[in-house]
Amino acid sequence: MEGSHSHPYAPTDLKLDGYVPIVLPQSTIVGIYLGVSLLVVSLVWIFSGRSQKISRLDRLLMCWWVFTGLTHSILEGYFAFSPEFYKDKTGFYLAEVWKEYSKGDSRYAGRDVGVVAVEGLTAVLEGPACLLAMYAIATRKSYSYILQFAISLGQLYGTAVYFITAYLDGDKFATNTYYYYTYYVGANASWVVIPTLISIRCWKKICAAVEVFQGQKKTKTR
Amino acid sequence: MEGSHSHPYAPTDLKLDGYVPIVLPQSTIVGIYLGVSLLVVSLVWIFSGRSQKISRLDRLLMCWWVFTGLTHSILEGYFAFSPEFYKDKTGFYLAEVWKEYSKGDSRYAGRDVGVVAVEGLTAVLEGPACLLAMYAIATRKSYSYILQFAISLGQLYGTAVYFITAYLDGDKFATNTYYYYTYYVGANASWVVIPTLISIRCWKKICAAVEVFQGQKKTKTR
Repeated sequence: MEGSHSHPYAPTDLKLDGYVPIVLPQSTIVGIYLGVSLLVVSLVWIFSGRSQKISRLDRLLMCWWVFTGLTHSILEGYFAFSPEFYKDKTGFYLAEVWKEYSKGDSRYAGRDVGVVAVEGLTAVLEGPACLLAMYAIATRKSYSYILQFAISLGQLYGTAVYFITAYLDGDKFATNTYYYYTYYVGANASWVVIPTLISIRCWKKICAAVEVFQGQKKTKTR
Repeated sequence: MEGSHSHPYAPTDLKLDGYVPIVLPQSTIVGIYLGVSLLVVSLVWIFSGRSQKISRLDRLLMCWWVFTGLTHSILEGYFAFSPEFYKDKTGFYLAEVWKEYSKGDSRYAGRDVGVVAVEGLTAVLEGPACLLAMYAIATRKSYSYILQFAISLGQLYGTAVYFITAYLDGDKFATNTYYYYTYYVGANASWVVIPTLISIRCWKKICAAVEVFQGQKKTKTR
């Protein structure tokens, strides 16, 4: 046994030498994530409301970008660069998060290269870009739409690779149906629905702007 | 041996039961790809030149989109949906292409799920989108820039996942240094450089259009 504990993940033949069990209860792990997120989102909502120039929809988008940006940078950033999180003995919160989430997808604990590649790109490129998107909305930068579009497309591409690779590998990485639907499907659903909506909106806004721009150029050259 | 031939790929412990060796020489395989591509690109260049409204740069872009679009749809499309191409006995050209390319990256013959996921997305979504981009440029659609941007970003994301997963898996999939640099690095380099240049150009064009658009709206509401 070499001091190793048996893990709760599927498939059971997954080797995780040195695995240390979760110490925090699920409610605490999920509660802290949702609680901190709600706090940050509330702060962004309140502060953005002090400017009358920012529409309600843009304020909502700022809330989304801060939430998803911090999730990418902190949670996913920790995962991408901590190959041995499942050996953590200190009850460190971020390690607990991924020990818990691995019940929905053991490829996290098992360090599947596809998952690590997608999470690495998400953490390093998309995380900071999300925070930039929040700033771009608040300050009405001309790159606001194209940046939001780029990040959303990256999120959709990453999520697609994430689901397709699991499917091709036999879709056998959840401890049970409960974790499959709450963690693997449920927790990722927001990153399918919201980026889709944002992409469509940005696409339309940009097309409208380009149409006016092309029309102007035509008028000028006449 | 069960009628199976030994394969030329790395690592040597890769199992490919029923592998049938390549029949066409490298020069034929590469020559047909480059020859057909040159033919199609030339046709697009000539026909697009008959319209005086299309700039030289836009014509060049149309050539790129038809080349990459057909590569995605036909070559990569065949790979994505032909898990047993390495067993092909007929000398079918597309199977030969991937038997040959696997010398640069055996994950193709080995059906690595990350590679299949990326190639599937590329073939199904990006391939047809590239041909649409060519059409959008020719007909000056307002969605032309955002579509070219979206595809280029998808290509860059796919290529990033492709290289990162190989790196994380030990970068051990090339038969030798020659194939590593010509196929794995060389053949993919265009899909890093060109999408990067196109993304930057589209980003700038879109920002300029949005700036004018936002300025107009301000003027109107005053």
